[in-house]
Amino acid sequence: MNDTISTPNFVSGHPDLKLENFIRTCVDEIIKTAVLAGTNRASKVVEWHAPCELKQLFDFELSAEPETNAKLIELLKATIQYSVKTGHPYFINQLYSGVDVYALIGQWLTDALNPSVYTYEVAPIFTLMEETVLAEMRRIVGYPNDGYGDGIFCPGGSIANGYGISCARYKYAPETKKRGLLGGKQLIIFTSEDAHYSVEKLAMFMGFGSDNVCKIATNKLGKMDTEDLERKVKQYINDGARPLMVSATAGTTVLGAFDDLNSIADICEKYEMWLHADAAWGGGALVSKKYRHLLKGIERADSVTWNPHKLLTASQQCSTFLTRHKDILSSCHSTNATYLFQKDKFYDTSYDTGDKHIQCGRRADVYKFWFMWKAKGTNGLEEHVNRAFEMSEYITELIRARPGFELVLERPECTNVSFWYIPPSLRNMERGDLFNEKLNAIAPKIKEGMIKKGSMMITYQPLRQIPNFFRLVLQNSSLTQEDMKYFLDEIESLGCNL
Amino acid sequence: MNDTISTPNFVSGHPDLKLENFIRTCVDEIIKTAVLAGTNRASKVVEWHAPCELKQLFDFELSAEPETNAKLIELLKATIQYSVKTGHPYFINQLYSGVDVYALIGQWLTDALNPSVYTYEVAPIFTLMEETVLAEMRRIVGYPNDGYGDGIFCPGGSIANGYGISCARYKYAPETKKRGLLGGKQLIIFTSEDAHYSVEKLAMFMGFGSDNVCKIATNKLGKMDTEDLERKVKQYINDGARPLMVSATAGTTVLGAFDDLNSIADICEKYEMWLHADAAWGGGALVSKKYRHLLKGIERADSVTWNPHKLLTASQQCSTFLTRHKDILSSCHSTNATYLFQKDKFYDTSYDTGDKHIQCGRRADVYKFWFMWKAKGTNGLEEHVNRAFEMSEYITELIRARPGFELVLERPECTNVSFWYIPPSLRNMERGDLFNEKLNAIAPKIKEGMIKKGSMMITYQPLRQIPNFFRLVLQNSSLTQEDMKYFLDEIESLGCNL
Repeated sequence: MNDTISTPNFVSGHPDLKLENFIRTCVDEIIKTAVLAGTNRASKVVEWHAPCELKQLFDFELSAEPETNAKLIELLKATIQYSVKTGHPYFINQLYSGVDVYALIGQWLTDALNPSVYTYEVAPIFTLMEETVLAEMRRIVGYPNDGYGDGIFCPGGSIANGYGISCARYKYAPETKKRGLLGGKQLIIFTSEDAHYSVEKLAMFMGFGSDNVCKIATNKLGKMDTEDLERKVKQYINDGARPLMVSATAGTTVLGAFDDLNSIADICEKYEMWLHADAAWGGGALVSKKYRHLLKGIERADSVTWNPHKLLTASQQCSTFLTRHKDILSSCHSTNATYLFQKDKFYDTSYDTGDKHIQCGRRADVYKFWFMWKAKGTNGLEEHVNRAFEMSEYITELIRARPGFELVLERPECTNVSFWYIPPSLRNMERGDLFNEKLNAIAPKIKEGMIKKGSMMITYQPLRQIPNFFRLVLQNSSLTQEDMKYFLDEIESLGCNL
Repeated sequence: MNDTISTPNFVSGHPDLKLENFIRTCVDEIIKTAVLAGTNRASKVVEWHAPCELKQLFDFELSAEPETNAKLIELLKATIQYSVKTGHPYFINQLYSGVDVYALIGQWLTDALNPSVYTYEVAPIFTLMEETVLAEMRRIVGYPNDGYGDGIFCPGGSIANGYGISCARYKYAPETKKRGLLGGKQLIIFTSEDAHYSVEKLAMFMGFGSDNVCKIATNKLGKMDTEDLERKVKQYINDGARPLMVSATAGTTVLGAFDDLNSIADICEKYEMWLHADAAWGGGALVSKKYRHLLKGIERADSVTWNPHKLLTASQQCSTFLTRHKDILSSCHSTNATYLFQKDKFYDTSYDTGDKHIQCGRRADVYKFWFMWKAKGTNGLEEHVNRAFEMSEYITELIRARPGFELVLERPECTNVSFWYIPPSLRNMERGDLFNEKLNAIAPKIKEGMIKKGSMMITYQPLRQIPNFFRLVLQNSSLTQEDMKYFLDEIESLGCNL
């Protein structure tokens, strides 16, 4: 007998020691290599290979015959080897990083139980847990603690922003649920030019069209220009359109800017518009007494996107949509499918919450976050957020003081720190188009160097007219001052001869 | 020192033996209790508690202070205890069941690596793996094997159906991406009255409105009446509307019926409509030489929804959208965000596939499926599907032969087997409204009994005018003939005195 387990293969009450051993061998490898070694500073963040190369190195191909368990373990190891270690301290490339052990355990249990959260019947614990977590998040947002409001878990912040658009439309044009957008008023969605692209993308998907997403200018700090907002709102009204909503941003993707929610709320009240706050990224700051002022006014928003998988480091994916309106999610999205949401069940079917969602089957993304929250307490979450912010303040000062480095924003608000590295060859050039053109090529080159070396990963991008700059972004609160120095040293050593 | 790990807490290159022990203790518990005991026939499928009771039994509450690791392990155990064991052989309640060990290992590794799939840079293995798996699935669908076509992983079949609507709209009304639906033609979506509710739900979300979803009658077998379809298409054209698409179903949710894709494709060609095939459920049959005829014509569909987490038992969630049109996903959904999809990277950025999606951050749902596919080979998937179908044919015959049981469909096409249990008290009643009314109350009562006992879980529902019946649905190919007898015995024993 070889070690191939005959298919079909389920754990199904016939204890199979060989299978159990296979599980344990795989799990050991995952813990040892992906979780522990993969987050060790001495390891590489990535072992880089171009797509064509990786296709040669890794056996992607699917075939008719099964692989042996020994081969599967090899493939598991190779997957770890060639994957980017997003939990590594030197991965500061995206709005998520770090491996939170509690979140990981929570996720692993969720996978083993493999629930789909639509009815209480099949997901009792997760249904009540969603209720608890979402209520607590609404309390932290500052919504009235009177049993009002609602919330859901979403597959990412983009779709959560789509729920904001959907609820706004239902509130001010409920007939669209039946009749659609055709033949109604022209509905306008306002957001800033620095807002996440999902607002425009979802507006297109949802039938508004990108022409009806009005992008408001941002000021030098990356915040929405509220005078420009009101001017444009009035203009659309004069032209006969209906300003529907403003999607304000609490923590923009690149600069980490916080829109002035109170001023925007004033405008929304004045013109009867829905206020959605996209706090997917910055929402985590709400747990901190020291930093929650950045989101002041958020309790006036009609709805909020807040992704615990970002600043609060729950594993991918953990996104929430919160609203102060109690029944709108259900009114807006329900179709009352009788095969799933039977009303003649023997328990209180108000706990069958699936019809609020546009998804049917849906993973229990709540558990990892709940388990982590339990493990740390709200105080622990606060301490984590404070450390990430304080470390970003520390590196901001390092950058300010260091020759060849220049900040994009003098005082970053969130843990995004944006900066240029200017190699010696450019330092004496006159600032202008030619300088910008040359500077624009620097960050991509340094990025190429660090990826090929595997020493760190940080993203770069242009923004409007300004040339490519680095965006360092911190969510991993175990990073130290030494790590901050390492980042700058590494960038300098990769770029100083360009 | 107590055993609370100080927060913030990351695995970050400082080996922490206590933390490692905590991980291992939790994983052991998960394997032992959730995976092995939870799928043992001797265990209960569910330990039932009503919502108000469960709130007393389980400590959901979040507080400022952290819990000890000992308490966390207790909570982990309690979560398992009170959760429905969806991997249990006697869980035949939904369109997913069973625990596939390979898929579970794949999911666990994905969690540990915690990737987000939008750029090759941060998800090299998963990006190329998606390419491989989606190409192979398109080949199995029967799309021309010439480098054409495209596909994506989606957060569930509902949203995959939304992608079908989105692509159809872009193909026949591309100007809507900018201008929206307002001021255009009235676009009509056709689907059957037995189709999944997501078609209507997504049409509402996407601005079409439910009035513009035309539900075509089904015949006695639950298949779309194609004469009714063509009649209605013509009628809409006469009324000045534009029939946009048909969403046909390959394996309806309740009866498991397969629409006649070839006839529908003929109509779609004649009237220039997009054909979307919702094979979320039935798609798995494509891997079987014996059963793929059920989906004949699917290769003519413009797009297909196919969820490997259903019939093929990849863990939640694994849904795909496939299309024969190469560039449409990208043309339709892209917004070209410069902060993420930089074109000045040093590698071939055609591998940065994120802009095709309406999600930004996105879990690597591909890995569990790929790993399972590698483990079993396509032959293993086929054997699995064949066994599930053969077992459903077996129980159909058992039901046919057994007094008090009645089939809803004489010859079910998919592994859904729908039937009534008629208790002795009703067997001599005249068939009619009163009988139906009484029968309608039977399935909910039996369901209540089985859940409270924890002996099995099977769903029931009414359909159009017919009273509540059971829908047994098989995806777990380790079930035996004895299990089939058990299901019927259990239903009879719970219902015979009603």
